[in-house]
Amino acid sequence: MDGKRVAVVLLSGGMDSAVVLAIAKGEGFACEALSFDYGQRHRCELEAAREVAKQIGASGHTVLSIDMRPIGGSALTDDIEVPKERPDIGEGIPVTYVPARNTIFLSYALALAEVKGASDIFIGVNALDYSGYPDCRPEYIDAYAQMARLATRSGVGGAPLEIHTPLSAMRKSDIARKGLELGVDFSLTHTCYDPLDEGRPCGSCDACVLRRKGFEEIGERDPLPYPVA
Amino acid sequence: MDGKRVAVVLLSGGMDSAVVLAIAKGEGFACEALSFDYGQRHRCELEAAREVAKQIGASGHTVLSIDMRPIGGSALTDDIEVPKERPDIGEGIPVTYVPARNTIFLSYALALAEVKGASDIFIGVNALDYSGYPDCRPEYIDAYAQMARLATRSGVGGAPLEIHTPLSAMRKSDIARKGLELGVDFSLTHTCYDPLDEGRPCGSCDACVLRRKGFEEIGERDPLPYPVA
Repeated sequence: MDGKRVAVVLLSGGMDSAVVLAIAKGEGFACEALSFDYGQRHRCELEAAREVAKQIGASGHTVLSIDMRPIGGSALTDDIEVPKERPDIGEGIPVTYVPARNTIFLSYALALAEVKGASDIFIGVNALDYSGYPDCRPEYIDAYAQMARLATRSGVGGAPLEIHTPLSAMRKSDIARKGLELGVDFSLTHTCYDPLDEGRPCGSCDACVLRRKGFEEIGERDPLPYPVA
Repeated sequence: MDGKRVAVVLLSGGMDSAVVLAIAKGEGFACEALSFDYGQRHRCELEAAREVAKQIGASGHTVLSIDMRPIGGSALTDDIEVPKERPDIGEGIPVTYVPARNTIFLSYALALAEVKGASDIFIGVNALDYSGYPDCRPEYIDAYAQMARLATRSGVGGAPLEIHTPLSAMRKSDIARKGLELGVDFSLTHTCYDPLDEGRPCGSCDACVLRRKGFEEIGERDPLPYPVA
């Protein structure tokens, strides 16, 4: 390392975490990207994460294989159907919620932070678009940071751990605008919960609908090849 | 389930977590045991966990494969030598510390708890014998529980999550005595950090030394086949 402060950045391959990585990099951190191969149905997500880490210039990229299938309980890891064009988007906890997912992801980020000497973790949670997920709320993130400061060596005399959630209060349109400002190549990112052949986005799952709306609201073109309606 | 309250019990295959499982069972919980295959060098630990879950009567036993080797940083997952007969046992943070291990394990326990409808998690941390590990301290466990209550569906209107650490204030001798009272077959458990051929304990790593001392102090025989000094 070149004397820069190191941050661990959770990188899914989606639009939000790509913008988070660009923000962390823009704040001067040497960024250690961290992605998970967790039995998600779409390996194109991981491929996207690799491309994004390269494009934005992460110092390192760790991919951890973790098996969440024996836990199940979500349309993203289990055989539950992904809902399409649902009218109640944003209400309640969606079936795509993976139990304790952010808690598990942050715990690995904490382990990597300790090994890499990082006292900063960046995660792209959003309290607006995903209000249905309990583990995206600011009070959850605050409680996590509090716990993390007690969990590790750095919690015993080192620098206090900080968890950064730069997207927390941003609308999808703000995230798109910020990413475009920072030069994020959104054509590399993967957002869809239920992609078509060759990883092309379906255009109608919750994730696609929110993403498309975000670009539309700022009058920008989303470079992904959605099906023509 | 037969109407009993369900608890998730972290089970390593060691002496401590075997006693925790027996305690949880004795308190009337239907126990879902949870073990990890995480690149620990000794697969005999997992075999021990399976035998222990069966002997004590867990309702279920989930084994999750997780890859912690890319994170490294510990003698238990990496190529760092396990210290023997060290004079400063109990001082500082030992090299056998795995970064954020309990945080990662508890996070999976939380996910399983959510799926199984459990609001109780049992973990065999001990604040006395392992004072060098930051993630065994009561203040850490309290902060974890606080975070966990905010992390999950049950944290949004369900029963508040409890983390039980029945061994926290017990000496190794108390743990041995309690296990014997509850009928734990300690010959099935595996404790050694650096076993000989066929999984036999070395007798001289920190874990073996603490265990042997515990049995000695209450004048009981540890059934494991240690090498003759």
